[in-house]
Amino acid sequence: MTETSLLPSLSEEQVRRDDRAHVFHSWSAQAQIDPLPIAAALGSHFWDYAGTKYLDFSSQLVNVNIGYQHPRLVAAIQEYAGRLCTVAPPFANDMRSEAARLLADLAPGTLNKVFFTNGGADANEHAVRMARLHTGRSKVLAAYRSYHGATAGAITMTGDPRRWGAEPGLPGVVHFWGPYPYRSAFHSSDVEEEGARALQHLRDTIMVEGPGTIAAVVLETVVGTNGILVPPPGYLEGVRQICDEHGILLVADEVMSGFGRCGEWFAVDHWAITPDLITFAKGVNSGYVPIGGVLISDTVAATFDDRAYPGGLTYSGHPLACASAVASMTIMREEGIVEHARDLGTDVIGPALAKLAENHPSVGDVRGLGVFWALELVRDRDTREPLVPYNASGSDAAPMGEVAAECKRRGLWPFVHFNRVHVVPPCTTTADEVLEGIEVLDEALGVADRYYRG
Amino acid sequence: MTETSLLPSLSEEQVRRDDRAHVFHSWSAQAQIDPLPIAAALGSHFWDYAGTKYLDFSSQLVNVNIGYQHPRLVAAIQEYAGRLCTVAPPFANDMRSEAARLLADLAPGTLNKVFFTNGGADANEHAVRMARLHTGRSKVLAAYRSYHGATAGAITMTGDPRRWGAEPGLPGVVHFWGPYPYRSAFHSSDVEEEGARALQHLRDTIMVEGPGTIAAVVLETVVGTNGILVPPPGYLEGVRQICDEHGILLVADEVMSGFGRCGEWFAVDHWAITPDLITFAKGVNSGYVPIGGVLISDTVAATFDDRAYPGGLTYSGHPLACASAVASMTIMREEGIVEHARDLGTDVIGPALAKLAENHPSVGDVRGLGVFWALELVRDRDTREPLVPYNASGSDAAPMGEVAAECKRRGLWPFVHFNRVHVVPPCTTTADEVLEGIEVLDEALGVADRYYRG
Ligand SMILES: Cc1ncc(COP(=O)(O)O)c(C=O)c1O
Ligand SMILES: Cc1ncc(COP(=O)(O)O)c(C=O)c1O
Repeated sequence: MTETSLLPSLSEEQVRRDDRAHVFHSWSAQAQIDPLPIAAALGSHFWDYAGTKYLDFSSQLVNVNIGYQHPRLVAAIQEYAGRLCTVAPPFANDMRSEAARLLADLAPGTLNKVFFTNGGADANEHAVRMARLHTGRSKVLAAYRSYHGATAGAITMTGDPRRWGAEPGLPGVVHFWGPYPYRSAFHSSDVEEEGARALQHLRDTIMVEGPGTIAAVVLETVVGTNGILVPPPGYLEGVRQICDEHGILLVADEVMSGFGRCGEWFAVDHWAITPDLITFAKGVNSGYVPIGGVLISDTVAATFDDRAYPGGLTYSGHPLACASAVASMTIMREEGIVEHARDLGTDVIGPALAKLAENHPSVGDVRGLGVFWALELVRDRDTREPLVPYNASGSDAAPMGEVAAECKRRGLWPFVHFNRVHVVPPCTTTADEVLEGIEVLDEALGVADRYYRG
Repeated sequence: MTETSLLPSLSEEQVRRDDRAHVFHSWSAQAQIDPLPIAAALGSHFWDYAGTKYLDFSSQLVNVNIGYQHPRLVAAIQEYAGRLCTVAPPFANDMRSEAARLLADLAPGTLNKVFFTNGGADANEHAVRMARLHTGRSKVLAAYRSYHGATAGAITMTGDPRRWGAEPGLPGVVHFWGPYPYRSAFHSSDVEEEGARALQHLRDTIMVEGPGTIAAVVLETVVGTNGILVPPPGYLEGVRQICDEHGILLVADEVMSGFGRCGEWFAVDHWAITPDLITFAKGVNSGYVPIGGVLISDTVAATFDDRAYPGGLTYSGHPLACASAVASMTIMREEGIVEHARDLGTDVIGPALAKLAENHPSVGDVRGLGVFWALELVRDRDTREPLVPYNASGSDAAPMGEVAAECKRRGLWPFVHFNRVHVVPPCTTTADEVLEGIEVLDEALGVADRYYRG
């Protein structure tokens, strides 16, 4: 380029000042936040403007699966930007076709068609619309302790406090309880019983809601932000079977759990079930360009062969976004990133977190797979009283704030939610980096132990 | 780069085959479409794989305001992709700060904060959520003959047939009639009367719905896809005043009408009114990277100073998307693109379309401003019977399909909706290109004239 850059170089002060003056942040009381400006990022690390380096155990919002600024992915985006940034949905485009082909190839069963969206929320919105029109039924069952996005339909399906401020929401959404062995809604005493009782609860809920009124059961294959809740053996298979019995569609939200996060391309691959619809976003291209979508089974797709699907968006199948997804999936395959994530879980993270639990009384539960783990912190292992209450804020949340602050002081950026620390680094993090981060956690958990009174 | 590209080179057959096999298209019966693969695009033109060149009078979905592959915009995207593609909303980021600052600078009044989204639908979803929480009221008034997006909240506000397949939608949305001089809902005889009666209708609707129950009036400043309905003088000022009388917020959807489309940065600038919230997307960066957002007044923003705003999305304030918006706004300013669009409307498009109306009996009405124009085609100028019925499909829609086909045959890509041809080229189109396209329209309208029986 002979031209000087169109993009200004801003000082940290300018970034902070204009952020505070002009940027309205998600989920926040605007006067009570002080967002840290990030200056640069590479691999599993990012840097602030003071040059402080953080090892990222959050993958931002659990989306940077491939790590930051992967050079091959950046190069592909730069290349395609020079070719064709944007083409509207009514046309065909090479990278849109190729991204859809790769996705269909990776997905289980006959999930052969892709409706592209901009992110996770709209993917869930459209999946549910398809399910309603396909079945001719309007009710949707979604789980408590879930997150599905923040547009009106997706937030209504959400089963956590983020829904509260958007109610009343879309009619026809009913919440049920999923399996959560450590805090069972069913008073079960072990994982097997939890799975069986959760299935019984789902059957009962469908019975009283009316099977013929229910279009879909929507769930996160592995619940993400609400606790890394790995389904007990047999649970998802049972849900699949219950759905089949009643002609109900199964929608698996893999926005967070897909694309290597659970050590598989799709989390459902662990249990060898095939949903009717899978929603995805985040890991499909690690958020380098906004994209999401719905994988659609042949049966559901056929409903819209001769009947128009009533939904769309200007950037459905955005060429630059699709090009980044093509490149990202190709890199993940060529570099064995999904397998690496799986091995990290089995060989490194799982054992190291188990050892943390041995050393720290405040660690009540450890669970996860791949690069998708949670430490649940408690004040008492017998009562399982959480270190901070459900949805705590302000001074109630202070103990978790202190744990997080201690991590940051030691150069680790943690993912903290309620009374949990999630260990969700990029899938490309090395074993050494993971162990280095867990060493920091080891120190930071000392802070949590001080609140322990068990 | 020493590496060979990660992105495959696909033949037209492959693009078509994988599109048909794997891409699920917006708003379509999948077995009845045959999307044209686009091979390349530059400025106001794109090319198919056969090398056929089309002058684009649609700007894709009325979003490519800056034209295709603007070299300076592409360079900025490539540059910033090499710096930092993605950073989550809880952090600060230089291009996010700068994009928000530029937007606040361009926007009228105290619209000083920006909540970034991925597109237009989610911008409208969040604007309405803000309005509801700010006012403590739940009802929303939206216009018939409008489009606001396809997520559950946005599609419920939509006042066109695209809503029908998604009903029942979000509770609390009420539709009213806006001004449309050519097909008045109020039996008015001229533009002034239409404006006055439309205001009376809005007042009456608010009266019977209950002013204290209404959070917001949502409208497209200039209605886009539903007809390029330019508000009569005094209408928007009147709506602003009615809203103020009742403590109702005014939300202006400028997703299509903003960023040069109407020959102003924001369409409201024509009437010098300031909404409480403006939603934007499309033209802010011409869709080179998906982005949208909400401009928020100081008063509304203050509601969320010490109370968390309950909404967010993973890609809110996406760095690469924000960088492209910064570059795009800078280019538009430096290259006088908004002024060019205004002049095109006044000096070129307006007069040329008026001449078409003289020559073609089927042209019942011509209206618009900037690069945002509609020709309304009729079978009879006296009865104003539309060339095809409202929401026509199949053989009912054939006459419009024939007009469109004739345009394409002659190298012009038109924007056709119901019984209208919209003239919505990129803001950067030259006067000569515009005249060349209108010459093609002149020929194609001969097809419409054949159906004329007035
Ligand atoms: C499981 C799940 N579904 C949906 C979403 C919503 O995705 P987005 O933020 O892209 O709208 C998220 C985001 O965190 C998620 O974790
Ligand atoms: C006025 C208006 N609002 C909202 C939208 C929705 O935007 P998106 O398609 O980015 O969701 C559109 C899209 O055409 C629009 O024209």
